Amino acid sequence: MKDVRLTIVGFGAIGRGFAKVLCEKHAFIAKNHGVNLRVSAICEVNGCLVNERGIDIGSALKPKNISLHKDFRDSKTIDVIKNVDADIVLELTPGNIKTGQPGIAHMLAALSSGKHVVTSNKAPLALNFKKLSDAAKDSGRQLKYEATVGGAMPLINLYKKTMQINEINSIYGILNGTCNYVLTKMEKEAVGMGIALAEAQELGYAETDPTYDINGTDTAAKIAILANSLMGADVSFKDISVEGIEDVTQSAIELARKHGHVIKLIGDAKELSVAPLLIPFNHSLNVAGTLNAVMFDTDIAKRITVVGHGAGAQETSSSLFSDVLDIANRINNGTFI
Amino acid sequence: MKDVRLTIVGFGAIGRGFAKVLCEKHAFIAKNHGVNLRVSAICEVNGCLVNERGIDIGSALKPKNISLHKDFRDSKTIDVIKNVDADIVLELTPGNIKTGQPGIAHMLAALSSGKHVVTSNKAPLALNFKKLSDAAKDSGRQLKYEATVGGAMPLINLYKKTMQINEINSIYGILNGTCNYVLTKMEKEAVGMGIALAEAQELGYAETDPTYDINGTDTAAKIAILANSLMGADVSFKDISVEGIEDVTQSAIELARKHGHVIKLIGDAKELSVAPLLIPFNHSLNVAGTLNAVMFDTDIAKRITVVGHGAGAQETSSSLFSDVLDIANRINNGTFI
Repeated sequence: MKDVRLTIVGFGAIGRGFAKVLCEKHAFIAKNHGVNLRVSAICEVNGCLVNERGIDIGSALKPKNISLHKDFRDSKTIDVIKNVDADIVLELTPGNIKTGQPGIAHMLAALSSGKHVVTSNKAPLALNFKKLSDAAKDSGRQLKYEATVGGAMPLINLYKKTMQINEINSIYGILNGTCNYVLTKMEKEAVGMGIALAEAQELGYAETDPTYDINGTDTAAKIAILANSLMGADVSFKDISVEGIEDVTQSAIELARKHGHVIKLIGDAKELSVAPLLIPFNHSLNVAGTLNAVMFDTDIAKRITVVGHGAGAQETSSSLFSDVLDIANRINNGTFI
Repeated sequence: MKDVRLTIVGFGAIGRGFAKVLCEKHAFIAKNHGVNLRVSAICEVNGCLVNERGIDIGSALKPKNISLHKDFRDSKTIDVIKNVDADIVLELTPGNIKTGQPGIAHMLAALSSGKHVVTSNKAPLALNFKKLSDAAKDSGRQLKYEATVGGAMPLINLYKKTMQINEINSIYGILNGTCNYVLTKMEKEAVGMGIALAEAQELGYAETDPTYDINGTDTAAKIAILANSLMGADVSFKDISVEGIEDVTQSAIELARKHGHVIKLIGDAKELSVAPLLIPFNHSLNVAGTLNAVMFDTDIAKRITVVGHGAGAQETSSSLFSDVLDIANRINNGTFI
């Protein structure tokens, strides 16, 4: 059985969620995919845990913050990415949508030192897709990012692995669970946006500062990634025309409902737009609560819709593992030099 | 660029649909997948067209029936499968749900003579899944069957290629477009089953003899394939508990509607059952017309639902190509000995 070594960069909710699933599923992965996934390093802003023979994940997850672990050292993340032996670097830091850093630097350092990259970090790809893809191409290494769009839902791999013959006319749908929760709540319970949003925050569905969700920026970042990766575009999220849900009123929702429609925040990778749109009650994109839903309109399969959880640390790890196991499988097959 | 050679067995609606897409997409496939797909042979019940240097697909599609082609010879299909040089045999004959023949014989002949098999033929797999999978394992060749379940929808490859880390609690949904069309029509237009079915036949959504659709056999065959391939079962479609939609009355549908539900024919790969069930209006499985919808309930990603066209020659070719291009890609990478 082949060892595949991972460096995990970012050990917040997503990083810990990934590590927890890795811990639980280590035997399942070995049995079903013939690979022994080992973690060589875990990096956080203030230092790293390194053990090239394999970190004990259980012990790494014990302290609430990895920096409290007895073996934690204040090495620099970028040095660990470059110098610690690993096949795949998981870039799981929170994105800074203005600069894309430190994600961009982490990804470039990983690729240039011969590691594959798997990431859940939208910002670098929403800002600098071409630069990062070119760096991957030049390095002969993989840059995979299923987890940046749609949480647990297979979207990028869905197309690349199961719908390869299709040319895509458009991809559109609901890509932000916070907005969908708020709009659903306003529709079903006739409450205003303030109350709906407060409840979303209370339940942990919305951030303390949900500005980027509500104003459409988060959806725009995901649309830029879908357009670049699956529709041959070369855009940043700044090129997307964006209208958020700030101005959607209770009375607009009520009026839509009377005419058999709901209002949903829809991102469109063909039109490069994000806006609140009317969706008929019985449409496949009319999904409730925090669910996401994305429709692929293609030439051969026609329309394929996927519905699933667009967020959540455990759910998102399904997408991270989809990328990790694809690379691991190809390492096993000797695909890479 | 690597040549990958195909033998097409069965040149009815599905076979011709596949060939048409191959013809239109030959350049797209070469450019995007680095493979030159060539057809070495096309077989029909009464003979075959063979050209190991590559059949001109345009000319093969011209006559309404391939047997009218000037180069058509009365060779036996089984001999062509065994003896004509090909990498992949596409088994696209209509299934005989009672015997699984001639599909079973075709698949075994292909595997034992070193060819991979891609099929849309449900019956052999719904009857003899283990025998055929074992034959594939023994031969070191691939047996792939995405097109047997859910038409254009990625289901088997969806799991195997994009949700690998998940353990599946259950898979259930709508897998027969004829039944869904009839039930939708009865619900929306308050007509009886006879009228709804007659219209489905007129529009080409139902067979002249729709018995196996209406009585649930077709759904049971698909459920057997999903249970065997994704849930570790070892069953034939005969082991599925089946109730069709014959006894669903207009008044039952009306009563369900009054209580916020629709009636749908649901197959369940965990329960190994097919039966008309109540589905809430706003449930992801409440899709209208000929659409199919399948929900995966898993441990990590939670619920992922796919909605799409469950039939149609062109649509189904999306799934056939998903399998063909996966094998072609692995031939290109030197995965097979």
